[in-house]
Amino acid sequence: MRFYSDNTATACPEILAALTQANQGLALAYGDDQWTQRLDAALGGFFGAEVRAFAVATGTAANALSLATLSPPYGAIYGHEEAHIATDECGAPGFFSGGAQLVPLPGAAGKLTLEALQLALDAHPASVHTVQPAALSLTQATELGTVYRPAEIAALSNLAHQRGLRVHMDGARFANAVAFLDCHPAEVTWRAGVDVLSFGATKNGALAAEAVVFFDSDLVRDFELRRKRAGHLLSKSRYVAAQLLAYVETGVWKRNAQRTNRLAQDIGRAAAASLMHPVQANEVFVKLGVQRRQALRAAGFEFYDWGAEGAGAARFVVSWDQPDADVPALCAALGRL
Amino acid sequence: MRFYSDNTATACPEILAALTQANQGLALAYGDDQWTQRLDAALGGFFGAEVRAFAVATGTAANALSLATLSPPYGAIYGHEEAHIATDECGAPGFFSGGAQLVPLPGAAGKLTLEALQLALDAHPASVHTVQPAALSLTQATELGTVYRPAEIAALSNLAHQRGLRVHMDGARFANAVAFLDCHPAEVTWRAGVDVLSFGATKNGALAAEAVVFFDSDLVRDFELRRKRAGHLLSKSRYVAAQLLAYVETGVWKRNAQRTNRLAQDIGRAAAASLMHPVQANEVFVKLGVQRRQALRAAGFEFYDWGAEGAGAARFVVSWDQPDADVPALCAALGRL
Amino acid sequence: MRFYSDNTATACPEILAALTQANQGLALAYGDDQWTQRLDAALGGFFGAEVRAFAVATGTAANALSLATLSPPYGAIYGHEEAHIATDECGAPGFFSGGAQLVPLPGAAGKLTLEALQLALDAHPASVHTVQPAALSLTQATELGTVYRPAEIAALSNLAHQRGLRVHMDGARFANAVAFLDCHPAEVTWRAGVDVLSFGATKNGALAAEAVVFFDSDLVRDFELRRKRAGHLLSKSRYVAAQLLAYVETGVWKRNAQRTNRLAQDIGRAAAASLMHPVQANEVFVKLGVQRRQALRAAGFEFYDWGAEGAGAARFVVSWDQPDADVPALCAALGRL
Amino acid sequence: MRFYSDNTATACPEILAALTQANQGLALAYGDDQWTQRLDAALGGFFGAEVRAFAVATGTAANALSLATLSPPYGAIYGHEEAHIATDECGAPGFFSGGAQLVPLPGAAGKLTLEALQLALDAHPASVHTVQPAALSLTQATELGTVYRPAEIAALSNLAHQRGLRVHMDGARFANAVAFLDCHPAEVTWRAGVDVLSFGATKNGALAAEAVVFFDSDLVRDFELRRKRAGHLLSKSRYVAAQLLAYVETGVWKRNAQRTNRLAQDIGRAAAASLMHPVQANEVFVKLGVQRRQALRAAGFEFYDWGAEGAGAARFVVSWDQPDADVPALCAALGRL
Repeated sequence: MRFYSDNTATACPEILAALTQANQGLALAYGDDQWTQRLDAALGGFFGAEVRAFAVATGTAANALSLATLSPPYGAIYGHEEAHIATDECGAPGFFSGGAQLVPLPGAAGKLTLEALQLALDAHPASVHTVQPAALSLTQATELGTVYRPAEIAALSNLAHQRGLRVHMDGARFANAVAFLDCHPAEVTWRAGVDVLSFGATKNGALAAEAVVFFDSDLVRDFELRRKRAGHLLSKSRYVAAQLLAYVETGVWKRNAQRTNRLAQDIGRAAAASLMHPVQANEVFVKLGVQRRQALRAAGFEFYDWGAEGAGAARFVVSWDQPDADVPALCAALGRL
Repeated sequence: MRFYSDNTATACPEILAALTQANQGLALAYGDDQWTQRLDAALGGFFGAEVRAFAVATGTAANALSLATLSPPYGAIYGHEEAHIATDECGAPGFFSGGAQLVPLPGAAGKLTLEALQLALDAHPASVHTVQPAALSLTQATELGTVYRPAEIAALSNLAHQRGLRVHMDGARFANAVAFLDCHPAEVTWRAGVDVLSFGATKNGALAAEAVVFFDSDLVRDFELRRKRAGHLLSKSRYVAAQLLAYVETGVWKRNAQRTNRLAQDIGRAAAASLMHPVQANEVFVKLGVQRRQALRAAGFEFYDWGAEGAGAARFVVSWDQPDADVPALCAALGRL
Repeated sequence: MRFYSDNTATACPEILAALTQANQGLALAYGDDQWTQRLDAALGGFFGAEVRAFAVATGTAANALSLATLSPPYGAIYGHEEAHIATDECGAPGFFSGGAQLVPLPGAAGKLTLEALQLALDAHPASVHTVQPAALSLTQATELGTVYRPAEIAALSNLAHQRGLRVHMDGARFANAVAFLDCHPAEVTWRAGVDVLSFGATKNGALAAEAVVFFDSDLVRDFELRRKRAGHLLSKSRYVAAQLLAYVETGVWKRNAQRTNRLAQDIGRAAAASLMHPVQANEVFVKLGVQRRQALRAAGFEFYDWGAEGAGAARFVVSWDQPDADVPALCAALGRL
Repeated sequence: MRFYSDNTATACPEILAALTQANQGLALAYGDDQWTQRLDAALGGFFGAEVRAFAVATGTAANALSLATLSPPYGAIYGHEEAHIATDECGAPGFFSGGAQLVPLPGAAGKLTLEALQLALDAHPASVHTVQPAALSLTQATELGTVYRPAEIAALSNLAHQRGLRVHMDGARFANAVAFLDCHPAEVTWRAGVDVLSFGATKNGALAAEAVVFFDSDLVRDFELRRKRAGHLLSKSRYVAAQLLAYVETGVWKRNAQRTNRLAQDIGRAAAASLMHPVQANEVFVKLGVQRRQALRAAGFEFYDWGAEGAGAARFVVSWDQPDADVPALCAALGRL
């Protein structure tokens, strides 16, 4: 039973159907097709705002292109030290921006705090000798399966804006965060000060589809050229646009996220004694110890170790199409340990 | 009737079916799935050689990642002045390589000549003051719908290798070239000295799938890191791998290319009097004049003007799924003009 | 007798004296010293305009930093195909800009023509698929020792500005051009539409000093950060600033340029029959043929061959401190051939 | 009395004399002059090894060019969190390398520890998803005026090499470190495993001269091209080479460093009660408190605050030409506080 990652999931039927339906007739290429042309309106509806939305195929592309639009080559990008952009994208922000420097910040359970950000910004000298504070990147839900409340985002964004930084949100698991908060998507994005969102669909039921959503359209032209130049403008754009349209319009974004969140809660309860972080999305981090990890694996469960070898931590991620029997089985096994 | 581009096409049934079949069960992410793991063998079989093959979603990514692997930041990349890398990728080779300089070469009908390459290499001073000759990029079939013979490629590659350059082939329409030559894929690639091939499937029946095929495996590790860093390693890699496997294993690559080549020949015959270049793939360039272009458009034909406004040139591209009636209608209309 | 390049010259006494005088007492670093603080005013006086002026140590730095400030990474930079930025800076504009693409234009005697620029701009498609026209770079005096008239620069700048490009001038031999035209420096810079000038002093009597002069101060902050980041902000800035101050304030810029221009005219007259370009600065290009080149070298003259091996062209450059006997000797030798 | 920085110093007489002596006759440009041609031998003599040495004008250039030669764009560069490359070069390593990521490590008194490096390397996953460990950068003397013992460097280099990293040393104040240790320059460089050294002369008596010294000549060609491309190959190279030759051949490197070290020791003793770090070079860090800082300034002493505003720390740097009266005056004032 696989709990490696939500990237192991298939595409959900609604999205595959949309893709198949889009497979009709000759359509204009490079985003001039009717599916792509509907993206702004569809995502605008989803977010309750005027937006400009652009489809790309990977989360790394969404994040790094967004950040390159927000930061000059000599910029500093503030983010959590365990953020995907800092640890799992092979330096993509540095590549796309032409060398901007990440400033890794600490924070419990994967969340940035206002204090840590303020401290870092205050400590940063105003001088030509250093990189220039340019962007803040938040991850919602975080890499550790936790979720920012709207007020937390607003406070961080507010400080960032006061200091002249733009705000990016890595929303690879955005749906899980919104499902957990049971709020409107607006509340954790533009209303809370987010300028650009990497809005992920891949992990939560698409094949390969992420939208970069701009709540501030000034930045859009630069983004479009960077996207093309990076090989992230798909010629047959209809297929990625169709995935995104189905994702927000059929409601699978919510249904899938609610299921994975609920199952993660089940695992969290079963592992309550050894839980490392609150379970607020579809990821559960458990301090199992090396032996119990081994035992679980021997019992047929697949998952990643997390962090330093000896720490004995394990990460379980629930996929939208996780077979029904998997989570009860995992819970039972955790209970036995 | 649309003759804009083969990018307007749908995906062909065999490839969509393969993608749908791959949509089963939790699979390892980032290329550790069973589909991706079969790529080397499948493409090795196709090319009759040991290869390392990597899937990406766009031709620009395939080209620019390949070239960045072949050229240092201070390298010079030689290619035709009308090559896609020079005119249609928004400077992607410069971005991916960290600033390598394209050296545009002239050549009739979109083809590089040995003379032009030799002249350029001879004229290039051996000095620390200039960019360093690093790579030659050939396009097969060319942007102007023509095709290099194996001996032509071998001669160009040979010269390039003698001067210390590596050889890249942009094969966005590789199938059309092979179908035209009726040769084995090996004859126009590794046997002719090509080191790395961008092997396109998107235009010829895939949704979004290109393979970067290395005939020299020394370069592979650098490529893998650059791909990840550029956001071109897909998390759910199975979907792009499945497209490529179906493309080479079901034979659609050939069937589709043969059909579009044949239809292009029909158009070429109908426009014989005004033909600008030999028709050797699925593109036809016709010197219509401004008025006849207008007349054709009024009659319901969609196509791109080509080159300078006043020149009156038109480009017609046949898609693999071009409706049966389209080409006869176009031929008739061209005959009437 | 050396006619290789004006880079072989020494520093002139006035400039060495200024540097020596600056060598007194502890001075603030990184440009907060009194010499650097006077640069804007001194160069503003020289150009008859409000300027912001920044010292760097090399012409390549001056050019590439200027162009990176004018062009985004996805920009196109138009310049003469024989411009220093295109042929002699190892791809520096691509490096500093993050990959901007040079568009090399032809033009007799090293000079861009309005027609060639217009043709290139007209031919450039307005599309996300290509690099975006961003900057025009003119060289004054050109690499071939010729000089643009004020009206020629104004016409080129005017067209560039109409199309949304900024204008850069590579003035590595700016003094020679002004001396030849016998005009005010304003006439060939800001009054003629130049936005940024690389104002060279090194070749004409400094040790290592070039000023980047902005006639448009909006661009300045970006430049300052790029300069620091590129290692071109000197810690002991006083020494480079002192050179530039002496260069414009003692009048050596003019005295030296007038001497080298005059001597080059002498050579030009002696080689009149084989002259390749009008002699308007301190460089003389002569079609000697391979044998006469050999004969001259045997007679003790040092100079560079120019262009293709077989063409038999030679370049003679006069240095500000060219020994008095050198030019008469060269003229006599040329006469004898 | 100025204790801001050793960058406020003048050039010492021996170096200015050498520069003046080099100002004779036409010399080949771009490093083909007789001064530059002697650099390898002179620095090879200094270090007791075969070296390749290259002159540049700034420490940022020396560091960033070295690191770009050691690290691919997707590399990770390990260094102290207070290293100049991390805090004072406006992201230069990211720019020159094409986006390599700095990994800032903690360490008391500005020094890296074997434990911190090992921890970081052990924690770094071996995967295509992250930047690849490529280089270690040590600063000798450190930014906090402390000095690594030969055995400390050897242990760090050894670990780095075991893990496949190359070792760079930022020696902006290398002479101070050697003078403090009273050792041969070899002992803290190649004998201790350093691959490339930024060998600073500017702070210690030159006008603007740093040498990049390669103890491993494999890397040299790449460096030369990067240097040219970055505008750091000086046309009149003789002037920077002459400074470096005088620096090592007249012994001023040692004389100046010994004087500034000795004066710094005097200050250290006067401030012994509030000293923040051992005084081992020409920098002294004192926890004065905000009020005593103010009092010292009122008494005519100029110096930089260090670190966070409220911390009350001050940095005093002694210049090679610090007037004789300055240090006794400062010591007296510190004693009075």
